[in-house]
Amino acid sequence: MKALVYDEELKLVKDYEKPVLGDNEVLIKTIMAGICNTDYEITKGYMGYKGVLGHEFVGIVVAIGDKVPKNIVGKRVVGEINCACEDCSWCHRGLQRHCPNRSTLGIFKKDGCFSEYFTLPYKNVFEISDNIDDITATFTEPLAAAYEILEQVHIKPDSKVAILGDGKLGLCISLVFRALNIDFVHIGKHENKLKISRDIGAKTMLLSELTQKQIKSFDVVVEATGSTGGFETSVSLVKPRGTLVLKSTITAKEGLNLASVVVDEITIVGSRCGQFAPILRLLESKKIDVKPLVEKVYDVENFVEAFEDNSKKGTLKVLVKF
Amino acid sequence: MKALVYDEELKLVKDYEKPVLGDNEVLIKTIMAGICNTDYEITKGYMGYKGVLGHEFVGIVVAIGDKVPKNIVGKRVVGEINCACEDCSWCHRGLQRHCPNRSTLGIFKKDGCFSEYFTLPYKNVFEISDNIDDITATFTEPLAAAYEILEQVHIKPDSKVAILGDGKLGLCISLVFRALNIDFVHIGKHENKLKISRDIGAKTMLLSELTQKQIKSFDVVVEATGSTGGFETSVSLVKPRGTLVLKSTITAKEGLNLASVVVDEITIVGSRCGQFAPILRLLESKKIDVKPLVEKVYDVENFVEAFEDNSKKGTLKVLVKF
Repeated sequence: MKALVYDEELKLVKDYEKPVLGDNEVLIKTIMAGICNTDYEITKGYMGYKGVLGHEFVGIVVAIGDKVPKNIVGKRVVGEINCACEDCSWCHRGLQRHCPNRSTLGIFKKDGCFSEYFTLPYKNVFEISDNIDDITATFTEPLAAAYEILEQVHIKPDSKVAILGDGKLGLCISLVFRALNIDFVHIGKHENKLKISRDIGAKTMLLSELTQKQIKSFDVVVEATGSTGGFETSVSLVKPRGTLVLKSTITAKEGLNLASVVVDEITIVGSRCGQFAPILRLLESKKIDVKPLVEKVYDVENFVEAFEDNSKKGTLKVLVKF
Repeated sequence: MKALVYDEELKLVKDYEKPVLGDNEVLIKTIMAGICNTDYEITKGYMGYKGVLGHEFVGIVVAIGDKVPKNIVGKRVVGEINCACEDCSWCHRGLQRHCPNRSTLGIFKKDGCFSEYFTLPYKNVFEISDNIDDITATFTEPLAAAYEILEQVHIKPDSKVAILGDGKLGLCISLVFRALNIDFVHIGKHENKLKISRDIGAKTMLLSELTQKQIKSFDVVVEATGSTGGFETSVSLVKPRGTLVLKSTITAKEGLNLASVVVDEITIVGSRCGQFAPILRLLESKKIDVKPLVEKVYDVENFVEAFEDNSKKGTLKVLVKF
């Protein structure tokens, strides 16, 4: 089968071996997949991962393991990407995404969805309703990661909120926050991207327009730039005793001053993958339109080209049709 | 009057002008003062402060402003160091220590207590009971900063807690946590300092004794080393979804990787000054013995020498008697 494999170099392999199905797993035929910046970072060494990339998808269940209910066969599904042991204290608390024994689809110890077929535990997959189209369904994973913020932080109806960063991540957060009637300002560097937020009714502001008035004025700031500069700007925007949500993995190469985090007693909350059920409710009720976030849909034959397109600065979501 | 002044260089000035008393202020004659690492950092440029240093003290009220109740005169007092406007939303919420209009004793826009006389707003001072001796009273401020952790973070009776760092700050936190029956392990590099914690019944561990077993095993880790390495060790000790309390102002010069804060969804809580009332209750009930933390008591005439003693690595609390 065709698979986009990273192993020191990135290659579209034509005869990659079809995965072996476990007792509790389903075999999924990929319909569409989305490229995430994490995929790109893996090709730069992140997680030391080698294998089939990819963790954003919609597909059809075409085969099942011995212990899986039969009625899932033929269903269109999306799936959570952390494959947990279901047998540790984390799993028992419903925190499978922190299971210390987990593998993660296309990121850690498990081949991903950038291939014609791949497997996931039955527990991870969600049948999706017909009114969620393939493109929208492929956004489930990044939108769930945005929704995760609300599982971790209590954003009140009158909280003053800012999202910093207008890339794919910042825009997904903007879509979710708007759908949930959160009052926020989306701050970024790119007028054309902020326009996407503005078109759905969000308040926006160019980074260059920030004034003293905004400093220490937000209860919650979501850092979605992935840069050290963005992190430091986020810290400066949070009120004393306020919360900074760290959505992007930052490595400060130039050094980082955490003194004002202490002086202003700021809380920093690291935030990663989210649950699928809440975001699927939103998508089913048509409260989110992901289309403005799509850069281009490629055919699987041009996967390497699609990957290169994604790695360009400023590219929105690149999708691949199987 | 005598005053230890920092103005590009550190000097014990003999004829510093006595402070002018405001309507809402009390004039305090210093009995004893404690040297804090923040004092040392100010002489290295922190806060850009110039003036009389010092914010840890016990003293006697010798004069009062027109609007201050007369019965405070002659009383032995300690005092909170943030002088607030009492007229903003922060002050109205009881968060004077985050008042944007504040000055801070010996740190920001207000001469400190390393002088024979200094002033504080009446609202800031606390009369102390006779059973708190001068040395113990001088520790009120750093112990309140340790207690602040419990205002910000809910440490449960069964929480697994670690304190990283066995300097003055870490030891003050150890004293408070022990007094409040918190179950913790104190981790540090210095056997002689950890012994102070062990002598009050705390579990201790040398940093070199850390094994894989401790990694990601604590619900709450208090970072009290002030070093980038200590911060990174603290992150590695916190369970996924756990809390890292940042007590020391860190500037990472060598770069800092925040990826695992995101992956493990760790919460970092910056923590600074605390309220005096809770810690005074503990001191009055004799639940804390600060004596093992005292390095030496100097006479005011030898203040510069005391300051140099404090700046040496590994020095415990240096006190100065007026």
